[in-house]
Amino acid sequence: MAKQVTLEAAERIIEVCKRKAEELGQPMCIAVVDGGANLVAFVRMDDSLLVAADIAVKKALTATEFRMDTRQLTSLVQPGAPLYGIEAATGGRLVVFGGGTPLTDEDGRVVGGVGVSGGSVEQDQEVAAAGAAAF
Amino acid sequence: MAKQVTLEAAERIIEVCKRKAEELGQPMCIAVVDGGANLVAFVRMDDSLLVAADIAVKKALTATEFRMDTRQLTSLVQPGAPLYGIEAATGGRLVVFGGGTPLTDEDGRVVGGVGVSGGSVEQDQEVAAAGAAAF
Amino acid sequence: MAKQVTLEAAERIIEVCKRKAEELGQPMCIAVVDGGANLVAFVRMDDSLLVAADIAVKKALTATEFRMDTRQLTSLVQPGAPLYGIEAATGGRLVVFGGGTPLTDEDGRVVGGVGVSGGSVEQDQEVAAAGAAAF
Amino acid sequence: MAKQVTLEAAERIIEVCKRKAEELGQPMCIAVVDGGANLVAFVRMDDSLLVAADIAVKKALTATEFRMDTRQLTSLVQPGAPLYGIEAATGGRLVVFGGGTPLTDEDGRVVGGVGVSGGSVEQDQEVAAAGAAAF
Repeated sequence: MAKQVTLEAAERIIEVCKRKAEELGQPMCIAVVDGGANLVAFVRMDDSLLVAADIAVKKALTATEFRMDTRQLTSLVQPGAPLYGIEAATGGRLVVFGGGTPLTDEDGRVVGGVGVSGGSVEQDQEVAAAGAAAF
Repeated sequence: MAKQVTLEAAERIIEVCKRKAEELGQPMCIAVVDGGANLVAFVRMDDSLLVAADIAVKKALTATEFRMDTRQLTSLVQPGAPLYGIEAATGGRLVVFGGGTPLTDEDGRVVGGVGVSGGSVEQDQEVAAAGAAAF
Repeated sequence: MAKQVTLEAAERIIEVCKRKAEELGQPMCIAVVDGGANLVAFVRMDDSLLVAADIAVKKALTATEFRMDTRQLTSLVQPGAPLYGIEAATGGRLVVFGGGTPLTDEDGRVVGGVGVSGGSVEQDQEVAAAGAAAF
Repeated sequence: MAKQVTLEAAERIIEVCKRKAEELGQPMCIAVVDGGANLVAFVRMDDSLLVAADIAVKKALTATEFRMDTRQLTSLVQPGAPLYGIEAATGGRLVVFGGGTPLTDEDGRVVGGVGVSGGSVEQDQEVAAAGAAAF
C-alpha cells in the first residue's frame, strides 16, 4: 500500500522538526496534515510565538492543497503575478511564504504536508524540509 | 423564453470542460452557477488539486456577479488601479485572475457563469472558454 | 485497491439519486464528498429550493465526518441527549436530520458520503439511500 | 514555580490518553491547551472520526475557559437552565458535553485543559480524566 500520513509518521516528522528547531535555538510550532488536508498532529514548543500556531497549521494545509512548497507561492501572488489576490479568495487559510512543504509517497504523489512557523522564513523552511525528508 | 442555466445546460457545459481538461492532461474542478449566482453543478476530476474546488466555484460566482471574464479583473485590482482592494470588500468570494467566464443568452445578457481551476491560469481560461462556448 | 469515491462513482450515485427524485416528483440538490470530506460532485435540479444546495453539501459532510446516517444524529442532539449543543461547536457545518448517508467500501469502512435536500426529510432519506446503494 | 502546561507536560498527557484509548479499542483525537487557551499539542489517532478533531480542541478550550469539566456544563445549557443559549453567544467554540477536563496546578488553579473526542461521551470523559490525572 502507498505510504500515508499515519499518526506514527506524523510524530516522527514532528520529532525531527523539533530537534532541528532546537539546534537553531528557535522555538517553533509544527503541524502535519494528511492528504485530505485534515490535521494529524501539532505541537507548540515552549516560548514560541502565539501567532505561529495558526500559521504552522495553515502552511501545512497550503502545501497540501497546492501540492507545492509554500515558498513557491511567494512570487506567484505578487502584484502583477498570475495568482495575485488568491489569498482573499481562499478565506484566510492560505500562507504564501516559506515554511510549508508537501509530503510525497514513493510515487511522488502528495499525501499530506508539514508546516512550521516561529522563526525567520528561512529557518521555518529549513525545519519543514528536515521534517519532509524524514517522511 | 430566454436561455437559462438549467441543470441540463450545466451538465453539458461541464462535459465539454472535462473533455478539454482531459485533452490538456490536467485534472480540474469545474463549477457552473446560474444568474442568481447559485451553484447548479460542480465536479472535481480525480487527482485535481484540493484548493481548486473552492477556487472554481468562486470564479463562476465572480464572472456572474461582475458580468465579465475574471481575467478582465486582473488589471483592475493591481496596486494603484481602480478596484484595488475590492477582494477584501467582497468577503473572500472574489477571484481576480483567469478561469471564470460569464454565460450569456441570445440577447447577450449574463445568465450565469462557469469557473475552472486546477491547471495554469491559461489552461483554466481555455477550459472555461470551451465550456461557455458550448452553452 | 479499496473502493473510493472517484468522480465516476460520484456521477453514478448522483444519476441514481436524480432518477429517484424524479420518480417522487420532487426536485432536489445532491452532493457527494470523499473520505477526506472534500466535495466531489454536486447538482441542483431545476426548481429545487435555494436553501437545499447548502444543506445537501452539509448532509454529505456530516455523514462522512460522523460515519453515520444523519438521521441517527437527530435523537442524539435533542435537549437532554448526549450530543445536545454539538451544532454550535461544529461551526454551522452539521446537519442533524435525515438525508445524509455514508458511503462504505467492501470492508464497511466509510470512504465518503452522499447528501440530499429539497423534499421532506423522508424523501431526502429515500433518495440518499438509493444513491448509497448504487455505490 | 507553579506547574504549567509545557509541551513536555502536554506530550505526557497525550501519551496517557492514547494508551487509554487503545485499551478501550477506540481511536480518538486528543488536544491540550495552556492557561491562555492556546493549543499546545494535538494528535489524531489513525481511523478516528473526522469530526472528532475539531471537537477535541474545543473541549479543551471550553474546560479551560470555564474552569470546569465540560460535562458540568451539560445541565446548565438545557432549555430553561441558567446558561441556555450560551453556545450561540460564544461563536461556536463551546462544547457542552463530557470529554473536556481542566488541568490544575498544585494550588488547584486551572492552568490549561485536555479535550478528547472520538468515542462515546463516557469513553471520551474517561480518557480525558486519565490525561488530567497524569498532569
